[in-house]
Amino acid sequence: MADKHILLISCTDEMGLISKISSIVYAHGLNIILMRECVEEESNRFFMRMTLSGDLDIPRLLKVLKQSIPSDAWVSINPKEKKDIVLFATKEYHCVSDLLNRHHFGELPANIKAVVANYEVLRSYSEKLDIPFHFVSHEGKSKEEYEAELLAITQQYSPDYLVLAKYMRILSPQFVAHFENRILNIHHSFLPAFIGANPYKQAYERGVKLIGATAHFVTNDLDEGPIIVQRVIPVDHGFSAKDMIAAGHEVERNVLAEALRLVLEDRVFVSGNKTIVFS
Amino acid sequence: MADKHILLISCTDEMGLISKISSIVYAHGLNIILMRECVEEESNRFFMRMTLSGDLDIPRLLKVLKQSIPSDAWVSINPKEKKDIVLFATKEYHCVSDLLNRHHFGELPANIKAVVANYEVLRSYSEKLDIPFHFVSHEGKSKEEYEAELLAITQQYSPDYLVLAKYMRILSPQFVAHFENRILNIHHSFLPAFIGANPYKQAYERGVKLIGATAHFVTNDLDEGPIIVQRVIPVDHGFSAKDMIAAGHEVERNVLAEALRLVLEDRVFVSGNKTIVFS
Amino acid sequence: MADKHILLISCTDEMGLISKISSIVYAHGLNIILMRECVEEESNRFFMRMTLSGDLDIPRLLKVLKQSIPSDAWVSINPKEKKDIVLFATKEYHCVSDLLNRHHFGELPANIKAVVANYEVLRSYSEKLDIPFHFVSHEGKSKEEYEAELLAITQQYSPDYLVLAKYMRILSPQFVAHFENRILNIHHSFLPAFIGANPYKQAYERGVKLIGATAHFVTNDLDEGPIIVQRVIPVDHGFSAKDMIAAGHEVERNVLAEALRLVLEDRVFVSGNKTIVFS
Amino acid sequence: MADKHILLISCTDEMGLISKISSIVYAHGLNIILMRECVEEESNRFFMRMTLSGDLDIPRLLKVLKQSIPSDAWVSINPKEKKDIVLFATKEYHCVSDLLNRHHFGELPANIKAVVANYEVLRSYSEKLDIPFHFVSHEGKSKEEYEAELLAITQQYSPDYLVLAKYMRILSPQFVAHFENRILNIHHSFLPAFIGANPYKQAYERGVKLIGATAHFVTNDLDEGPIIVQRVIPVDHGFSAKDMIAAGHEVERNVLAEALRLVLEDRVFVSGNKTIVFS
Repeated sequence: MADKHILLISCTDEMGLISKISSIVYAHGLNIILMRECVEEESNRFFMRMTLSGDLDIPRLLKVLKQSIPSDAWVSINPKEKKDIVLFATKEYHCVSDLLNRHHFGELPANIKAVVANYEVLRSYSEKLDIPFHFVSHEGKSKEEYEAELLAITQQYSPDYLVLAKYMRILSPQFVAHFENRILNIHHSFLPAFIGANPYKQAYERGVKLIGATAHFVTNDLDEGPIIVQRVIPVDHGFSAKDMIAAGHEVERNVLAEALRLVLEDRVFVSGNKTIVFS
Repeated sequence: MADKHILLISCTDEMGLISKISSIVYAHGLNIILMRECVEEESNRFFMRMTLSGDLDIPRLLKVLKQSIPSDAWVSINPKEKKDIVLFATKEYHCVSDLLNRHHFGELPANIKAVVANYEVLRSYSEKLDIPFHFVSHEGKSKEEYEAELLAITQQYSPDYLVLAKYMRILSPQFVAHFENRILNIHHSFLPAFIGANPYKQAYERGVKLIGATAHFVTNDLDEGPIIVQRVIPVDHGFSAKDMIAAGHEVERNVLAEALRLVLEDRVFVSGNKTIVFS
Repeated sequence: MADKHILLISCTDEMGLISKISSIVYAHGLNIILMRECVEEESNRFFMRMTLSGDLDIPRLLKVLKQSIPSDAWVSINPKEKKDIVLFATKEYHCVSDLLNRHHFGELPANIKAVVANYEVLRSYSEKLDIPFHFVSHEGKSKEEYEAELLAITQQYSPDYLVLAKYMRILSPQFVAHFENRILNIHHSFLPAFIGANPYKQAYERGVKLIGATAHFVTNDLDEGPIIVQRVIPVDHGFSAKDMIAAGHEVERNVLAEALRLVLEDRVFVSGNKTIVFS
Repeated sequence: MADKHILLISCTDEMGLISKISSIVYAHGLNIILMRECVEEESNRFFMRMTLSGDLDIPRLLKVLKQSIPSDAWVSINPKEKKDIVLFATKEYHCVSDLLNRHHFGELPANIKAVVANYEVLRSYSEKLDIPFHFVSHEGKSKEEYEAELLAITQQYSPDYLVLAKYMRILSPQFVAHFENRILNIHHSFLPAFIGANPYKQAYERGVKLIGATAHFVTNDLDEGPIIVQRVIPVDHGFSAKDMIAAGHEVERNVLAEALRLVLEDRVFVSGNKTIVFS
């Protein structure tokens, strides 16, 4: 459908907003196929995702919208259909390979431009699937030097999103600031949470009955940004710590793929430390 | 919130509908808190559920809406907050008692007016919780006579909804016609489906790994009306046929309660043989 | 089946244990219908649950077993089929009423002897279902006085298990010591965990996508004993804090009922801070 | 752990079987780490999976076991750790690529020897991951000719298992007979089931709320053999038929991978038209 469009708006809420927006859209001869909206009460912000059909004059629609809705509005019409993304990895293959695999068959609305890792482990696989691989070691370098290298390589691809596909290092606030709300991370999650080293060992020793994973945007706390997707799978006393890790990998790969799909389809808004997900 | 309102519309889709409706709402000084809409493509029907705040003049709003939107529109403003319902049962207690229990503590936005059953088994429990119980035996009567009795008793309560809470008899099209899209049923579901007697035995013999339940509106095929909620729970080879039945009861009671909640909160539209659920 | 028996053993693991036990059982003319066993590696403890058929001379079997297996063995043959339990509650009804409801229809292999609460809220419901209700206020009393009262009332029922069905007070180690591994508790669980007051508000503000519940045995840390059952349900940005609480109640009532069933059927062993669940 | 062993037994049940087997194992100086057993009541068959540690003299143990347990016993000690498998495919990539991907990183205890397909679509991907690809067209051939070709190619790899990874053709009883209980298949599953062409379209039109997948052994009814794993994922009215297909693919790939893992780890016994899964 050549004439199907996406309109995204986020702004301070005010009375009559839906009326204004839908009237403008109507006046431009566009039909609303699907509309999802939400007002985040705490922040009094309005979020909207509209699917439209009809002939679209983007600059004209944009101009009229900007005149009519609150001045702090962020508006996006037909955001890039295929986002450019760069994957960061360490040694674990399960998330990287799952994403490269989906990408290879055109399942992800994205161009994976490169895999960047601080180990060589995933080079061969990445290159087999025709994805450039960059090895950037963190060893023998200051954090600043290391991240400067990472940044230089990353920026040459001008990615829309970075995906930390089991990238096990903490990025500095300075690095994160270059990609605000554009870095996705995946991490294991337990009930209760386990702090400190070797959480799977702790989970095993505690006899948890669920192993989970959380995909979230990275802010300055590694595991604490806005949550996009969470899921769990059941485990029992018969699972060794190693089995729990394997179970965790299953759920991590599925959760990261789902979160990335939602983000790539422009279904995720960030509001403070939460997300609005129009799934 | 005394001034929170619900507006429900279902009509033939046409261009500009959201614009028209939201402009009318705005012109009446009402603020849209939440709006969910959907166009069912096959039928070209538009479904909408709006939560509004502000002072509301219902007849005035209704009049203006009716003038502006397609003439086949069904519009409801602030549908009854507490629906009157009647439960039909046989002998099994798990769904009836769960609903009476929730009702007793005010969890359901409903008045359960009565339990009607073709066995006496649930009388004592119903009466303990102060719900009138009617025994209507099907024995020694023609289907017409039996259903006439059922209907007479049911209609004295003028229920908004009938809930077949493990009511194991098939209602005639004539009976169903009195309560179009207002009868909920719950039944077990398997993959694959098992036809004929004793489906749990068949499921056991087939070694299924999931036991499910489906809550749906009753049309003229007992288990074939528009689906509202479906869920499953895992079982394994260690489950006897009896264990599978117990597992089935767990999922049935949860699915029926969830489906009823959605219906009572006016979140479910029927479109042909499907539902639109604005959960 | 009058001649179906349960044999439970927990002891230090040693080589040949299954051979010894199964040979003894065989020599007594008993047939093993189902056997579940597990060695907890950290503690080197062996746990076993056997279902047997045949004519059973309990004292004789017990004597021979005790002579043959490690001297620290705990052995139980045909544990009480219907355990006596006492429920502790505060004001929230969802777990208490679900359990009383199941109990009323004979679904739980238990006699609920009484409900004890520090508010009067649940008296009427308990009494309707013929369960004695005891109001023990904590107000104006020292913790010692209050717990002494609780203990006196509880002990008059000699319960096999106490179930904290949303009992919102922390029991002292002295109280807990009277019922070692015999107190079940249910609490909400999130990923991540939220510490401090009003966890649902925190979960809402953090935009979690799952709400969970954990049923566990009570040790001296309220929410930290051996986990029996955990489950989650999905939520999204459309859930208010109040909706999240309602979702939490759904999962809490199901998880507590499931955990209690497993315990009552003698399927749960405690090993240190973990459970072995032969489901 | 060089000295960890697997013992599998399936035979007619008789009294004292566990005692006999565990005594023999003990007499051979082996320690039982984990034992799972089950008697399938209908067929009166006994199934057992034991994990053992210690020095093992396989022929000696096998000989003694065979003398002691029912003569129809099937016994396997340390079955092949890495099974040889051949994948059959058509055009859909999601299952084949997921399995090749897992295989590439050594996650599957298997050697994928080849992909055989009746379209060329998956050649390039298979070859990138160093897996031989065979194109066997069904066009212009009788079923006998086509299957003879398939069989010749397959047999040159002497596979332990065939995996139909979205292989969309029905294999004849003659073909299936060559690999009894050694062919795995995956198919979508719905509640209710939809018979005939285009089940996803039917599911969409019926407004199902769950999409499932079933992995099973192939017998002579394509979708009717013993079930190994089943799972579902939720969908709603916002899913187009195409979205439902995508959701179905997600669950299919996960279910097939899980079923294959269970089979490769020798955790699945077939008993008539059911499976016993010692997960």
